[in-house]
Amino acid sequence: MPSNLPASLANVPRAFDRLVQDLGALVAIPSVSGDQAHRQDCRRAAAWIQARLSQFPGAQVQAFETSKNPIVLAHVPAADPQAPTLLIYAHYDVQTAQPLEDWDSDPFEPRLADDYLYARGATDMKGPFLTTVAALEAIAAAGPLPLHLKFLVEGNEETDPRPLRAFVADHKDLLSAEACLNVDAGMLGPHLPAITYGLRGSSNCTVRLFGPAHDLHDGTYGGVVENPIHVLARLIAGLQDERGRITLPGFYDRVRPIDEPERALLSQIPQDEAFFLRASGAPALLRDDEFSPVERAGARPSMNVRWIQGGAPKNAIPSQAAARISFRLVPDQDPREIHAKLLDHLESTLPPTVRWEVVDYVGSRGALVDRQAPAVQALAHALRETWGRDPLFSRSGGGIPVVGLLQEALGLDTTLTGFSLPGDNAHGPNERVHLPTLRRGVEALVRFFFGLAGQPP
Amino acid sequence: MPSNLPASLANVPRAFDRLVQDLGALVAIPSVSGDQAHRQDCRRAAAWIQARLSQFPGAQVQAFETSKNPIVLAHVPAADPQAPTLLIYAHYDVQTAQPLEDWDSDPFEPRLADDYLYARGATDMKGPFLTTVAALEAIAAAGPLPLHLKFLVEGNEETDPRPLRAFVADHKDLLSAEACLNVDAGMLGPHLPAITYGLRGSSNCTVRLFGPAHDLHDGTYGGVVENPIHVLARLIAGLQDERGRITLPGFYDRVRPIDEPERALLSQIPQDEAFFLRASGAPALLRDDEFSPVERAGARPSMNVRWIQGGAPKNAIPSQAAARISFRLVPDQDPREIHAKLLDHLESTLPPTVRWEVVDYVGSRGALVDRQAPAVQALAHALRETWGRDPLFSRSGGGIPVVGLLQEALGLDTTLTGFSLPGDNAHGPNERVHLPTLRRGVEALVRFFFGLAGQPP
Repeated sequence: MPSNLPASLANVPRAFDRLVQDLGALVAIPSVSGDQAHRQDCRRAAAWIQARLSQFPGAQVQAFETSKNPIVLAHVPAADPQAPTLLIYAHYDVQTAQPLEDWDSDPFEPRLADDYLYARGATDMKGPFLTTVAALEAIAAAGPLPLHLKFLVEGNEETDPRPLRAFVADHKDLLSAEACLNVDAGMLGPHLPAITYGLRGSSNCTVRLFGPAHDLHDGTYGGVVENPIHVLARLIAGLQDERGRITLPGFYDRVRPIDEPERALLSQIPQDEAFFLRASGAPALLRDDEFSPVERAGARPSMNVRWIQGGAPKNAIPSQAAARISFRLVPDQDPREIHAKLLDHLESTLPPTVRWEVVDYVGSRGALVDRQAPAVQALAHALRETWGRDPLFSRSGGGIPVVGLLQEALGLDTTLTGFSLPGDNAHGPNERVHLPTLRRGVEALVRFFFGLAGQPP
Repeated sequence: MPSNLPASLANVPRAFDRLVQDLGALVAIPSVSGDQAHRQDCRRAAAWIQARLSQFPGAQVQAFETSKNPIVLAHVPAADPQAPTLLIYAHYDVQTAQPLEDWDSDPFEPRLADDYLYARGATDMKGPFLTTVAALEAIAAAGPLPLHLKFLVEGNEETDPRPLRAFVADHKDLLSAEACLNVDAGMLGPHLPAITYGLRGSSNCTVRLFGPAHDLHDGTYGGVVENPIHVLARLIAGLQDERGRITLPGFYDRVRPIDEPERALLSQIPQDEAFFLRASGAPALLRDDEFSPVERAGARPSMNVRWIQGGAPKNAIPSQAAARISFRLVPDQDPREIHAKLLDHLESTLPPTVRWEVVDYVGSRGALVDRQAPAVQALAHALRETWGRDPLFSRSGGGIPVVGLLQEALGLDTTLTGFSLPGDNAHGPNERVHLPTLRRGVEALVRFFFGLAGQPP
């Protein structure tokens, strides 16, 4: 059978036009999984994807209910039943667009400007997800598929790993595959394709402190009754130092050291202090003479208080204060062990002036994948053909809990890449995606699909 | 001229019935000065008071515009133009009732239960203010007044001392008086009348920290870009220790020590640790072996972070964090000097990872008044006659900036008392006032007015 690769590549421009149209429709659905008010919007996004994938010949597409938002599962068959199967993971949910006043335009109305499409979810990850659909479109328009494609598209990635975990446990048979692709990682620049071989895990929880039974006049009680905000501030201040190192006892016990070969690989990533300063707009970075910014953001753990809240604009000692404490973890840190250490620390250090509770724990393990695996090498080849240079190998500072989940539940290693750029502002205001990069992404995926099927050009 | 005191006292029951009716009407006006949405309600409260005071024979009542809420000024003349003048200070504004869910009933719908009237402002200070009106009512119904009464009723006490300060500077002539009464302090129990001879001052400001230019994905940047919440936590944690002692350099430099006679006086106040525990509902109090709770709450300075805010429920490093930092001061601390020390501290300790600004400074001096002054002695006599015991002399932990203001601008010492009880929950949910105590308050004020006019029983 002659390869359909050239014909498929020739179809990319048309498939890309359709991608832009699809992306406009999909980002207009505010599928914010962290906000109950958008529950129906999440269902609409799932229905949109179900309908879109159903347009491929022979596709079997189903939506499954979960404890939260539905999961869409599709199987688009190869001509040869014996062809290998690639499982493509994606998520249709997005982060909140709050605070809205930081946006230059409506986050759920796609805006095109200077080769970018601006909208919440444009880069995380509706745009990248649609590159996989467009690659399929380009190939399907040229003839039969060289491999089976399965799509697993969930709606709780930004908020809760549990619905997917339960689904995977219950439907292992439907998810069987030889390889798994996830394009939820990113590039390091428009001309710097990358394969992400490491991910950070996380351990997150909300700590609530309760002081007086109700808000108290701070004149009448100030100096006698402790303010839970003060206790919370001492707690947070005591968990990390001025370099950002975590001071929770035992926190670094299991952190896998960065060896010299890996240090050399990571040093190729062109992100120095100036890059991080520019990209963040921060007045200065944390100082750490031992680890480079790239190492700190990907291969070292970190702590982040996502929110803190207590009190009100009045002359009172508030009755409570709370904060969400998040740790990014690296192999071989165990999120539950880190959480237990935090609980021990609270138990042993919080003063008797407050009662406390810890709620909403969510954790995931970090992951490292084999850079020599066939799927990784096939992808490296496809990226090289498309961009004319070797991809960089990077470790992402973000967590993609599904990678560890699929590895654990199905023994399936994920090949991680993506077509997001560092300035795309995922999770922030004015999120955007670079359209020419998405288009190259479609081209690279067409090559990858053929390469994985054993039909390199 | 025979004293009208007995006849006036006989009128107290009727005047008190009217007080309860008036109080119901006045607390139903949500005159929250801290909330722009209640601007018109503040004007309605001022208009209500203007109308009420205009009902007294010969009363001259005016409302004055200020930069914020209006000030009501009334002069109700004595029969004898040469009689002394008592200036009665009060405020009609109240604190916010937020969070509403902590209330058992609508905070602006008076609820009567078990001798209490529940509503925002019931005890701070619409109820106590109306005891002065009811005392006037009881006396006026019996005959001519033994002294001139001036009422100065403002609407920004809870939020901003500046409108009153400007008004007093501009209208010193209208405010001339021999003595000043303020019933915005409180009793120590229903059978423990008190005269407050000391007040704490305050120095308050909002500190805002700015980190990255916008919220950043905490996976991508965690460990490299500092979170302004972390910096704010370190700042707050570094401003006081676990005993609640303020660690800002130089903070205690001017604190006037508590001498032994005063310590003996304060030790008569029946508020031990158990009292503060019960009243606050806190699981434990701050431990301090050097100063008793009464000393700490009245005669020692304290710090209170009124609110803290930063971040949102998403996986991001927030771009900013802020907190309102409040210090309660004692003589001879200077609020501007304390504020300057805080600014110096910020300047020298905040890291380069954040930019910062300090806004909305408000400060006032603490005060101590002469316990031997004639008005204080006249009030002590009136309280003794009414409750059958000597009043306690206490130092209030709250600030009443007007006391220092009238002292500075008019050379007028304020005699401070009140009919609020410690469990009234001023500034908190389910604020209430004890009606039998208000009634005794009316009786005591009738006696005080005659006593001050040189007509003791």
